[in-house]
Amino acid sequence: MAKGFQTLTGFRDFRPEDCAVRNYLFEMFRNVARRYGFVEYETPLLESTELYLKKSGGELSSQLFRFEDQGGRDVTLRPEVTASLGRLVTAVQRDYPKPLRWFEIGQCFRYEKPQKGRTREFYQFNVDLIGESGASADAELIALSIDLMTELGFVKGDFVIRLSDRTYWQNFGKSRNLTEQQTAELLQIVDKLEREKPEITEEKLSQLQLTTSEIQQAISQPESLGDNLETVLADLEARGMKDFIEVDLSIVRGLAYYTGIVFEVFDAKKSLRAIAGGGRYDTLITALSDGKVDLPAVGFAIGDVVIRHLIEETPHAHAQLQEYLENSTSCEIYVVLADQEKRAETLSLVSELRDLGFATIFSLAPAKVNKQFKQAEQLGAEVTIVVGSEYPELTVKNLRERTEKTIKADKHLFDTLVDIII
Amino acid sequence: MAKGFQTLTGFRDFRPEDCAVRNYLFEMFRNVARRYGFVEYETPLLESTELYLKKSGGELSSQLFRFEDQGGRDVTLRPEVTASLGRLVTAVQRDYPKPLRWFEIGQCFRYEKPQKGRTREFYQFNVDLIGESGASADAELIALSIDLMTELGFVKGDFVIRLSDRTYWQNFGKSRNLTEQQTAELLQIVDKLEREKPEITEEKLSQLQLTTSEIQQAISQPESLGDNLETVLADLEARGMKDFIEVDLSIVRGLAYYTGIVFEVFDAKKSLRAIAGGGRYDTLITALSDGKVDLPAVGFAIGDVVIRHLIEETPHAHAQLQEYLENSTSCEIYVVLADQEKRAETLSLVSELRDLGFATIFSLAPAKVNKQFKQAEQLGAEVTIVVGSEYPELTVKNLRERTEKTIKADKHLFDTLVDIII
Repeated sequence: MAKGFQTLTGFRDFRPEDCAVRNYLFEMFRNVARRYGFVEYETPLLESTELYLKKSGGELSSQLFRFEDQGGRDVTLRPEVTASLGRLVTAVQRDYPKPLRWFEIGQCFRYEKPQKGRTREFYQFNVDLIGESGASADAELIALSIDLMTELGFVKGDFVIRLSDRTYWQNFGKSRNLTEQQTAELLQIVDKLEREKPEITEEKLSQLQLTTSEIQQAISQPESLGDNLETVLADLEARGMKDFIEVDLSIVRGLAYYTGIVFEVFDAKKSLRAIAGGGRYDTLITALSDGKVDLPAVGFAIGDVVIRHLIEETPHAHAQLQEYLENSTSCEIYVVLADQEKRAETLSLVSELRDLGFATIFSLAPAKVNKQFKQAEQLGAEVTIVVGSEYPELTVKNLRERTEKTIKADKHLFDTLVDIII
Repeated sequence: MAKGFQTLTGFRDFRPEDCAVRNYLFEMFRNVARRYGFVEYETPLLESTELYLKKSGGELSSQLFRFEDQGGRDVTLRPEVTASLGRLVTAVQRDYPKPLRWFEIGQCFRYEKPQKGRTREFYQFNVDLIGESGASADAELIALSIDLMTELGFVKGDFVIRLSDRTYWQNFGKSRNLTEQQTAELLQIVDKLEREKPEITEEKLSQLQLTTSEIQQAISQPESLGDNLETVLADLEARGMKDFIEVDLSIVRGLAYYTGIVFEVFDAKKSLRAIAGGGRYDTLITALSDGKVDLPAVGFAIGDVVIRHLIEETPHAHAQLQEYLENSTSCEIYVVLADQEKRAETLSLVSELRDLGFATIFSLAPAKVNKQFKQAEQLGAEVTIVVGSEYPELTVKNLRERTEKTIKADKHLFDTLVDIII
């Protein structure tokens, strides 16, 4: 058999059962964002390539879905949202009181080698707090990331927040008389510490007159965490969230634009890539606006792919998802037409049931009563209503409880049905 | 002042207030789909170009965002969803009872000249009923489109469904001994009847041995509507929806793949382009699957741009939207910290309020009490809770009703607050 049309490598179809999982994630994202007072925005999926090059300093440039449009513009499918957010905020920030509490849920595209936990498109939940420089804003976003995990059904012991501060390394660099460029190199080395071969790390550090053991000591026995980390820790303790936190100065996050506190969410076993991450980026909006707008910011992002893996591997989180899916039936009421003479009455009843808010299905084509009941079961219907020659008398069956009742199609229909269904 | 980064021509930013309107539309789309027993799916935004060329027969090919990806694939940002749906259904249809009731909400991209009601990206709500050939399926989707309009606050007199059947013209062609190719040409001429210059129409028709007055008579005085149109009309009458329908045989819809009933939703004045449209496409899935899967289908689609214009121009529909927006505040409770000594208690209270489900905001940076109250008002807070030296006693103000009350931060907090807010 010929293969026929396929999705592109690394791209996903969401069949209804997958789309329901996606929508579950989105609902949890929105629930938590709402409780923290964040409002939703959205930027275009396609932007001028220049925007991304300016922001990321080329780090993502090898992974872009980049092309020339029919008007000769150099355009790119967004690899991430923060650059667009910076552009939008620059343009409209004057219209809003600060700080902005804004979030977005949308797709991003990166041309990477597809593998477990990594696709070429993914949904990302982006949360940004813009216009507040104090570490309490960092704490607010970290708290949000913890609440998101608990909203998804995770509990203490399932995940950990690895918390760090890039200024710690800035200060470390100063104390060793490193130049800015050398400190940037040091951050890159620290970022790769867990993945790089030890001899390569040692070699790179030696060029900065440093050793691996010095760095490991700076990570494991910091002299001082600094005011910002202390503020964040005290804040999270007051919220009853300190137990989720693991200070880990080896976390610096790869992207060059972070300027202070950074954090990543990991599964407790650290068997997966970072599930989510964020941090402070106080200079990005200034850079994107050519210095016209100066707003400090802290952001957080989580993709849909890794978190879905973790949910599926965590029994209690998975059970919560399953319960959600089971409660979202596409068919609350299936109307069985037992007497073709009553087709008009059936259509009228179906309309009324839908107007009353019930998810209602009936057989579009004439079919035997048995076949209609079979379809009702296939669709997971909660209730069937049989319309027969005795109309306006209707036979209502609750398929879950296997009970049956005769009711009238009258103005009390809604209340009667709610009693039967619930 | 330099312009800085801009969105691409024809692309839109959704600031929070625009995103709220978008989300309102999505919510109405999902509400109606759910009541009709439809389940949501999603396909990739990027597909092989071949898929679209095969489906549309080149009609959209001048409007594609088409490029070569890093792997040398000829790929295209989707201009519409039905081709992807056909691909997906071909691959997975065996797993589902028929008919499929599937819907999708997502973005599409067309390189067109931007103008009022036409952008280069738009959201589209696609509803498809697959696996049922009878006209009752067509009626079901037309009913859904009517219920969608009423869900959005439109009433009789605001809009009309123009209903037609392409088989009427197929039969007309046969009666005039036209070839299939000639009948296809006739459909193109009928499609452009309202927009084309009369003399050009006359000229084109004369090549088919036809005249404009013959065609106009065929439209205004049809000898027979045919069984399918009669079935649809009887069905919609039984649902109490016939008054929304205007049989109009001049509607054939441009795309070549429609095979039977077609319909379009128009504003009553017909001052805008078609708001929505759909029809039967019984051969498309067969074609996309190279004949391996043969499923009749009927679909319906509505974009977000034109309907938003119509809502804004229709006072009662607009009022419904405004009410929705006013009820979706980002701040139910603003917690005012009146005594900096109580910062830890405030953070704990904020956490608790969010756990209880309240959208809660507080001042991240220390600020004067007056300034905090001002921010609460700017954010449209419903209630403020003041945490001061008398904690755990809290002062609660309902900002809408201008009432004030002293309560305790204890285990009855939720019930107390619900009483005050509602």
